[in-house]
Amino acid sequence: MVIRCRAAVSWAPNTPAAMEEIEVAPPEAGEVRIKIVATSVCHSDLYHLLESMTADGFPTVLGHEGAGIVESVGPGVTEFQPGDKVIPLFLCQCKECRFCKSPRTNQIRQEIMAGVESRFTCKGKRVHQFMGTSTFSEYTVINQIAVTRIDPAAPLDKICLLGCGICTGYGAAVNTAKVEAGSSCAVFGLGAVGLAAVMGCRAAGASRIIAVDINSDKAEKAKELGATDFLNPKDHSRPVHEVISEMTGGGVDFSLECVGNVEVMRSALESSMEAWGVSVVVGWTDMFDITIRPRHLICGRTWKGSMFGGEPVALLRSYLEKKVKLDEFISHKMELDQVNDAIDGKLSNSANLILLNDTFVKLYNQIINFYFVCQF
Amino acid sequence: MVIRCRAAVSWAPNTPAAMEEIEVAPPEAGEVRIKIVATSVCHSDLYHLLESMTADGFPTVLGHEGAGIVESVGPGVTEFQPGDKVIPLFLCQCKECRFCKSPRTNQIRQEIMAGVESRFTCKGKRVHQFMGTSTFSEYTVINQIAVTRIDPAAPLDKICLLGCGICTGYGAAVNTAKVEAGSSCAVFGLGAVGLAAVMGCRAAGASRIIAVDINSDKAEKAKELGATDFLNPKDHSRPVHEVISEMTGGGVDFSLECVGNVEVMRSALESSMEAWGVSVVVGWTDMFDITIRPRHLICGRTWKGSMFGGEPVALLRSYLEKKVKLDEFISHKMELDQVNDAIDGKLSNSANLILLNDTFVKLYNQIINFYFVCQF
Repeated sequence: MVIRCRAAVSWAPNTPAAMEEIEVAPPEAGEVRIKIVATSVCHSDLYHLLESMTADGFPTVLGHEGAGIVESVGPGVTEFQPGDKVIPLFLCQCKECRFCKSPRTNQIRQEIMAGVESRFTCKGKRVHQFMGTSTFSEYTVINQIAVTRIDPAAPLDKICLLGCGICTGYGAAVNTAKVEAGSSCAVFGLGAVGLAAVMGCRAAGASRIIAVDINSDKAEKAKELGATDFLNPKDHSRPVHEVISEMTGGGVDFSLECVGNVEVMRSALESSMEAWGVSVVVGWTDMFDITIRPRHLICGRTWKGSMFGGEPVALLRSYLEKKVKLDEFISHKMELDQVNDAIDGKLSNSANLILLNDTFVKLYNQIINFYFVCQF
Repeated sequence: MVIRCRAAVSWAPNTPAAMEEIEVAPPEAGEVRIKIVATSVCHSDLYHLLESMTADGFPTVLGHEGAGIVESVGPGVTEFQPGDKVIPLFLCQCKECRFCKSPRTNQIRQEIMAGVESRFTCKGKRVHQFMGTSTFSEYTVINQIAVTRIDPAAPLDKICLLGCGICTGYGAAVNTAKVEAGSSCAVFGLGAVGLAAVMGCRAAGASRIIAVDINSDKAEKAKELGATDFLNPKDHSRPVHEVISEMTGGGVDFSLECVGNVEVMRSALESSMEAWGVSVVVGWTDMFDITIRPRHLICGRTWKGSMFGGEPVALLRSYLEKKVKLDEFISHKMELDQVNDAIDGKLSNSANLILLNDTFVKLYNQIINFYFVCQF
């Protein structure tokens, strides 16, 4: 049966979402309908809304960092049943394509993700599902390859963070950069992704972790999660990579860019030790090119990228064993219909919708405001 | 005693070298004076002469791909004696700095290389030693940390190629890219470095090696050295990375840029498989930035650089065991005083000076002519 429920519908880019009643069709073959219990707001939601600047993919329901409970399953679904606690995965695994079968990547063939259809309608119009998930809705329908079942002990209003940001930052440090014990690291940008990267560097045994942000209010949280130093580029007249080079005798072993700003990506690369530094691009943007001098690579650096580099079930286990922090990332809780307030930075406390990124919103406004076209 | 001998002196950038009589002072403490028997011409010589466009470092004697015989040694030198066959190393190993002690790099602290003094004078002026080697001279004085002794059986008029180009290309494939058995590769630019990279890919067991050049005359030599396919971008209306993607079902596992052109560096990266491709910048230029979209890395590619990635003594052993080719790289032999003819592409046959890069000179003229300011 069709479910009528509330969702935050983004009718067009660069405009606030509208709380609407939508129709969520029953799951078809291989699909799962999920009651979303909690969702957080991620850079990529805002990117799609504010930066992609195209009407493609609208109207849509944003949100991809969610957690919920299976409400019903479509024909042929045997791995899930109503009542299962699950996390939707924007980056899914079909287990059959050349990418999913390879141990060298966590990616899937793009055509498979692009082929997912929406089960949402609103006011007679088809509404796109953002990243195949659309967690800013009370219910959503997701292909079973994009759902992972989780431990029933998991608190959904916390572990929704594993749907993107925490896995992305932590995994970029541990799995992509492969941070080594005793190494030095620099993490640029202390939103949820960057703070999770700090936590990942610490878990990997880094002995020095320099947390970099233009907002000094973030220093305390970064140190709580494992940073040994905090550096505000605004406190220095020299480029940040020169400051880091001086602090570390030539640059860090590993650097991670967690902002989504091409200038910061260059700084992060240049902040890594020229002869063997590894720098990982984690923040997402597709507006501009990165630029770099060839010699920055030829002398010995490695430049990588990471997308959802962590494994949520493993991280959930670590969280339940108190080896990984999640609660500390949550700055505000609010209702779903406050999503615009969340994006606007006018945060209030309430249930249901977690807003982890007051830090991010600040960062976003401050670092990216040279192309921050719209002010909500 | 001072030796008076002939050398090709480059008095200024962007002008032909002049054959001059120079004075070569005796080796000082820790230095070795070498009679150069053969030298080849490399991209980096021409880069310094034609592209760096600054009078810094002039007058100078170019040349860094040489082989010779120790003539005398300075105080404190115990590892070399007159009569030793040696190769000068533009990238040396002091074995004491943080870089040399690290297994993660073959680089040395730049300050150490920069601190090398010249023992050349000409017409009363100090003449700089290019890259600490200056092999376009009958005699040169080199710091002992920049000299490696080689097997007396080595033919100097062949193995001078190990002083840069062959080690650079071969090592970039085997040691930097770490090409895997059964993998697919693309090598951009088929000068000596690119052809050596092809040979390295083959030695590493790659099953498909696509050799890319805008000069189809190079196809035959590339196939002789191990290429399975030749691709001339001029034969296609689409960008070369799209052609390679179609040929390989999504891109090669490994790509190597051996031209020194920032546009080609981008093509090489984009030609590698998005989810796990490794691309290595090998060609040298410092004129422009490389540009790339962040998503080209975020989706899973790795971008690296390589400088003199191979070990000359090990490669010499492989050559003497007929496992690695060198003779096939040599296109012309000529006298030292024909060095301008060599650079000019007007090649002739003679002894003493090996010109391996008629292929390179063509490539250089064709690919880089948008900033090829001077025609000799």
